[in-house]
Amino acid sequence: MTDMGSIRVTETATRAAPAGLPDIDPLLAGLRESTAARDRRGGHPAAEKASLRELGLLRLTLPRHHGGYEADWRQTFSILRRLAAVDSALAHLLAFHYLQLATVVLYGDAAQRDRLLGVTGADDLWWGNALNLLDPRLHADEAADGALVLDGVKSFCSGAYGSDMLVVSALHRRTGKALLAVAPTGRPGITVHDDWDPIGQRQTDSGSVSFAAVGIPATDVIRAPGVEPTLYQTLRICLGQLILVNLYAGIAAGALAEARDYVRQQGRPWILSDAERVEDDHDVQRRFGEMHLQVEIAARFTERAVELFDAAWTRGNAITPAERGAASLAIMEAKVLAHRASLFVGQEAFEATGARATRAALGLDRFWRNARTHTLHDPVDYKIRAIGRSALLDEVPPPSLYS
Amino acid sequence: MTDMGSIRVTETATRAAPAGLPDIDPLLAGLRESTAARDRRGGHPAAEKASLRELGLLRLTLPRHHGGYEADWRQTFSILRRLAAVDSALAHLLAFHYLQLATVVLYGDAAQRDRLLGVTGADDLWWGNALNLLDPRLHADEAADGALVLDGVKSFCSGAYGSDMLVVSALHRRTGKALLAVAPTGRPGITVHDDWDPIGQRQTDSGSVSFAAVGIPATDVIRAPGVEPTLYQTLRICLGQLILVNLYAGIAAGALAEARDYVRQQGRPWILSDAERVEDDHDVQRRFGEMHLQVEIAARFTERAVELFDAAWTRGNAITPAERGAASLAIMEAKVLAHRASLFVGQEAFEATGARATRAALGLDRFWRNARTHTLHDPVDYKIRAIGRSALLDEVPPPSLYS
Amino acid sequence: MTDMGSIRVTETATRAAPAGLPDIDPLLAGLRESTAARDRRGGHPAAEKASLRELGLLRLTLPRHHGGYEADWRQTFSILRRLAAVDSALAHLLAFHYLQLATVVLYGDAAQRDRLLGVTGADDLWWGNALNLLDPRLHADEAADGALVLDGVKSFCSGAYGSDMLVVSALHRRTGKALLAVAPTGRPGITVHDDWDPIGQRQTDSGSVSFAAVGIPATDVIRAPGVEPTLYQTLRICLGQLILVNLYAGIAAGALAEARDYVRQQGRPWILSDAERVEDDHDVQRRFGEMHLQVEIAARFTERAVELFDAAWTRGNAITPAERGAASLAIMEAKVLAHRASLFVGQEAFEATGARATRAALGLDRFWRNARTHTLHDPVDYKIRAIGRSALLDEVPPPSLYS
Amino acid sequence: MTDMGSIRVTETATRAAPAGLPDIDPLLAGLRESTAARDRRGGHPAAEKASLRELGLLRLTLPRHHGGYEADWRQTFSILRRLAAVDSALAHLLAFHYLQLATVVLYGDAAQRDRLLGVTGADDLWWGNALNLLDPRLHADEAADGALVLDGVKSFCSGAYGSDMLVVSALHRRTGKALLAVAPTGRPGITVHDDWDPIGQRQTDSGSVSFAAVGIPATDVIRAPGVEPTLYQTLRICLGQLILVNLYAGIAAGALAEARDYVRQQGRPWILSDAERVEDDHDVQRRFGEMHLQVEIAARFTERAVELFDAAWTRGNAITPAERGAASLAIMEAKVLAHRASLFVGQEAFEATGARATRAALGLDRFWRNARTHTLHDPVDYKIRAIGRSALLDEVPPPSLYS
Repeated sequence: MTDMGSIRVTETATRAAPAGLPDIDPLLAGLRESTAARDRRGGHPAAEKASLRELGLLRLTLPRHHGGYEADWRQTFSILRRLAAVDSALAHLLAFHYLQLATVVLYGDAAQRDRLLGVTGADDLWWGNALNLLDPRLHADEAADGALVLDGVKSFCSGAYGSDMLVVSALHRRTGKALLAVAPTGRPGITVHDDWDPIGQRQTDSGSVSFAAVGIPATDVIRAPGVEPTLYQTLRICLGQLILVNLYAGIAAGALAEARDYVRQQGRPWILSDAERVEDDHDVQRRFGEMHLQVEIAARFTERAVELFDAAWTRGNAITPAERGAASLAIMEAKVLAHRASLFVGQEAFEATGARATRAALGLDRFWRNARTHTLHDPVDYKIRAIGRSALLDEVPPPSLYS
Repeated sequence: MTDMGSIRVTETATRAAPAGLPDIDPLLAGLRESTAARDRRGGHPAAEKASLRELGLLRLTLPRHHGGYEADWRQTFSILRRLAAVDSALAHLLAFHYLQLATVVLYGDAAQRDRLLGVTGADDLWWGNALNLLDPRLHADEAADGALVLDGVKSFCSGAYGSDMLVVSALHRRTGKALLAVAPTGRPGITVHDDWDPIGQRQTDSGSVSFAAVGIPATDVIRAPGVEPTLYQTLRICLGQLILVNLYAGIAAGALAEARDYVRQQGRPWILSDAERVEDDHDVQRRFGEMHLQVEIAARFTERAVELFDAAWTRGNAITPAERGAASLAIMEAKVLAHRASLFVGQEAFEATGARATRAALGLDRFWRNARTHTLHDPVDYKIRAIGRSALLDEVPPPSLYS
Repeated sequence: MTDMGSIRVTETATRAAPAGLPDIDPLLAGLRESTAARDRRGGHPAAEKASLRELGLLRLTLPRHHGGYEADWRQTFSILRRLAAVDSALAHLLAFHYLQLATVVLYGDAAQRDRLLGVTGADDLWWGNALNLLDPRLHADEAADGALVLDGVKSFCSGAYGSDMLVVSALHRRTGKALLAVAPTGRPGITVHDDWDPIGQRQTDSGSVSFAAVGIPATDVIRAPGVEPTLYQTLRICLGQLILVNLYAGIAAGALAEARDYVRQQGRPWILSDAERVEDDHDVQRRFGEMHLQVEIAARFTERAVELFDAAWTRGNAITPAERGAASLAIMEAKVLAHRASLFVGQEAFEATGARATRAALGLDRFWRNARTHTLHDPVDYKIRAIGRSALLDEVPPPSLYS
Repeated sequence: MTDMGSIRVTETATRAAPAGLPDIDPLLAGLRESTAARDRRGGHPAAEKASLRELGLLRLTLPRHHGGYEADWRQTFSILRRLAAVDSALAHLLAFHYLQLATVVLYGDAAQRDRLLGVTGADDLWWGNALNLLDPRLHADEAADGALVLDGVKSFCSGAYGSDMLVVSALHRRTGKALLAVAPTGRPGITVHDDWDPIGQRQTDSGSVSFAAVGIPATDVIRAPGVEPTLYQTLRICLGQLILVNLYAGIAAGALAEARDYVRQQGRPWILSDAERVEDDHDVQRRFGEMHLQVEIAARFTERAVELFDAAWTRGNAITPAERGAASLAIMEAKVLAHRASLFVGQEAFEATGARATRAALGLDRFWRNARTHTLHDPVDYKIRAIGRSALLDEVPPPSLYS
């Protein structure tokens, strides 16, 4: 794909629609081998992102006529949770790819949708973002023909590094209003910085992106400045939150799976235990019981949230506040519970594995670090209160900046 | 119905099958008015049991040809949970009525099933039990014609007081083996004692029953001494546990509902609060958020346990250990979570209502007392460990005395 | 003692100062026998209050020249905690008696102190209160000679019923300002209502008191309307809170002690336990371990709060904001921790005792009900936040309505 | 110091006794600057260990006639907790140095004590250990003149790397009994491996040590094979546990201190908060309130455990089982509470700091990783049960392998 002016569909766009869904088992097996080492190293998972692309995962949510699998959100999140259990940073990158495509679907007009999803399907493009709403430093000035020129910087740009395309938010300088646009990451003037070095979710490429006089043709603006989003479009916020929920649930499940494997293979009863086999040790049993319960709580509520979101999504512009509210409430509930589950299992697993499992080479602390980092996305307290107000008044919560 | 020798079907047995399910809303409204006072008083809820009978609830699970509603377990437990939210003692009585009927279904032969369910449907009989397995004081001696004679006593006989029929377990004196039989409560020699006075679940009529030379004809023995139960028959244990689960979940939901009504009607922000309306008070919101989450956890896992049990039940003698195990595991998970939810909400509700809600006339402490009493049925620790062992080994738990 | 106009010292005022402190062991043994029954009955513990008086406990904090024991706050609260462990309602009554005497000490002038403490010592008077600050329904009008006339009602008047003397707060009708006065409970126009019927702390006589044209001579006004309390006088708030803390800590300790006695005498391992003796059962051990830790936390922090309060009290008018703040912070910390300990042990004890300990005759639920009722005095959330703000800013908390 | 045969006092042994205690404030300020970077790097903190030596800390517990400060255990642990709050790996190294010296005091005869403490004071020697009791791979064979020859390996040898002296445990090959000896780390045949790479407590030099035909003269054997330790000598186990307790309490306090500094300097209310200043944000206040309470619980119980241990220590051989038991119980209680506090604050701090505090450069996750690694030393469940058994039976716990 080349980019001249606006984004164009390449000539190879007509791709045969795939049958079934990608089989990610081999991918997961490979990632599991390398995840501890890559977590320590941090930085950009170029090879792994290439593997996901290779497997067709970038086209999972695309329509079949663009070469996609047309997976619904249940299928999509099922895959994302399994990926997150093994490598929650890669799962984050892939989920945010889907989020950007969903943004095009929600905000783009028919031509934009067709063109942008088409080129994505044709060329297996990776999408990233530069639209952290809390960072007001990126501005758009007006140019000829309705085009815009972007200048400034955005932080926390998950997936930008190594991406092909970006969804960008900026403040319209004249009106002070927010807008949304798309741009090829390689467009001159765009610099993606390699400045992401956190304690967890280390390979999510969530650094900053600078824009220096970056031109955006009018046809690549998907939300004009000051146009209020429709109720349907506000599902983007729900989707963003639902991604977090699925990652937390995946992390919790992954931590439990690793602990289980470790204990089955290397565990042994404490020297003062009554048990001869580790699975008969009452303390080990109790720890696994409590972990299993938390993982199941996270899983069940996450699945339910996905179902309600999927139902809301398929309603399109006919969606009602009650339907959106029901999905939003389910997402909130799942978010609080998966948040807690991921931290709990990330910490508790060690009580079951014992001291020998603290070798850095095993990297079993990555689950807690990934959970701890990612669960700070937005404060959980606001969710709990919104849930409580809804419960008290028997209402659904209204849309907000983070729900 | 008269009882001569064995239990006989009355002549009015051919009753028209009812349409739909009983509408319990008016019943619940009435019970709610009296539940706090009856809790204080304790003793036997004769009038309320009569109301349940009146409404046809005693025939809920019976086949249509016996005048029943043929409700499946999902429908049955849905009604029981709603009843438990308002009056968990009555819900316990009704649930144990269903448990005894299920015992007849599981253990009785075709003739016994037809006769005992028939007479139940015809005369709207209330069933109770005298089969606490931990109490070894009731013995059966052999008499002529395969009949037995019972002597001794049983404790914790929920629903015996005021019942028409009993399921009884006894130890066969010659072999020391357990057996199961049925008997009309009014049979000479049976004395139901009014000696149940606990801190919660006060109107469950769970006192002791004495047997003095009580004859049991051979046709009323549904499990002969020493006959090992089939895998299918062991579903009785699962059902007994599942009843507890649904009662706990109902108690949790009821405590939340009462707290919600109280706060909406009488609540006010604390004098130092920033909020003007109680629903805007952040502490109140948080408390309701946490309670709602626990109630939802209990509800979701209870519903899932009911579904798996219902599926296992319909398998009949074709049931596999894996199917029974899956149901048993789901029941265990739900039991731990509903146990905790009922205690948590029973205690936490007061933080949201404040000091004025501690008036004895309101009786809001009954939820905690009911939960605290009933959750001690068998120790939760064994469930947690069984869950953990299953999670560690990726197995389902085997049948046991309480699972 | 007779009451004409102002309160007068009786002629027997010169009482020999007692040696040592009262031995409350026999008292506690007796109370323990009757506490469960009295809890069920509720109402006024006339005989038990007489026993406390008999033992000299009403004079515990009085100066020796008024026949008192001059116990410091460490000694006083040590006795109160032991009493609360057995009967927290009586402990509340006695503690509030001390609180009213402390109010006289803090607010009264030298003559008032001498006269009121003197008559108390001479006649072993029981003090109660009618000064709930949140209830604005009692008003004072001016009469001749600086006297006041009280009309209206006060709720939550702990200890008023059956008392000899009252500390009363009222709103001065002309200025709208609060004032404090003392009055003999038997004065014409004062009616103490027997309308206290809560779910816990049932024998605390905390009903309402009506005043109909009740005259108060000027010499019985201990805080004139609108006079701001000194920093020293605000220790009354700290003392009120510290009383709650000690009662909570006592309830927690009492619940543990009852559970311990029950298990040692009647406990047995669960039927599926590996243990032969109940003290070797790992679940029972763990439950007791967790309860013991909570009780110890409550005890240690309560003792520390008492020490800091005692130190602040002995500073008198020389007290600095830092000294008062340190005591207030310690009281807040202890309040949160003892609040939690009392509820936790009140609930958890049953996991260790098992189902047979739910007999109403044992009344083991009284600890939870007492804790649940009393811990709602003022919302714990405000304490936690004040502690957090102090920790964040490295400051002590300022005086407030409840700290 | 040179080492020929047995360990010899150098000629500079007569060192002036220092006045006061070392001022560690400048040291702490320096360590705080480098601790996050050193945590990432792991490996051996040579420069920092030199600083501790420089400051005289290696002589803190030595008698004054050996150039020591004669600090008692309260003073010693007060310094260790402050160090642990900043750098719990270094605190571990220093604490284990004291533990080895205490081992010499407890097990050595008068001549050994004088010689080994003397040379330590004279040359400011660093002690490490090779005595993990759970590792049975190091054996001792008999040689001439009562000497021994060591062969084998020990794991988890905290402080061995870079040390001057080692306390070593080995199994006597002929009898199978354990013995204790001391040896200069540099003695030929001893190889300290640089193989310690865990997820936390990374600079504790706790790798393995190999012994190849290492001779130990009879005078360096401080516990002969098979000699049962006296009650007094078993205080070594208590001391080892008490060191863990103090490190946990220090980690908890350190995490809170870092969070406080971060929030005061860089914190800001969430975008949806009602508060303008971060210290007025109710969620931030609550989080700090809860963290402060946990830190205080850990601190108070740790101080109490140190006091009881110090009292037991000073009793020497006159110590009774009750006295040792009281110290042991206090240490257990503090261990459970400090364990929990360290994990809780290590995790919770992030809820107060928010997402921006997850930068790897800040390294705020080190507190949780340090706590998580170190709290696995021996399973906390055994402590809780021992506490519970003692509470139930009103006894003190007996000595065990880890208490």
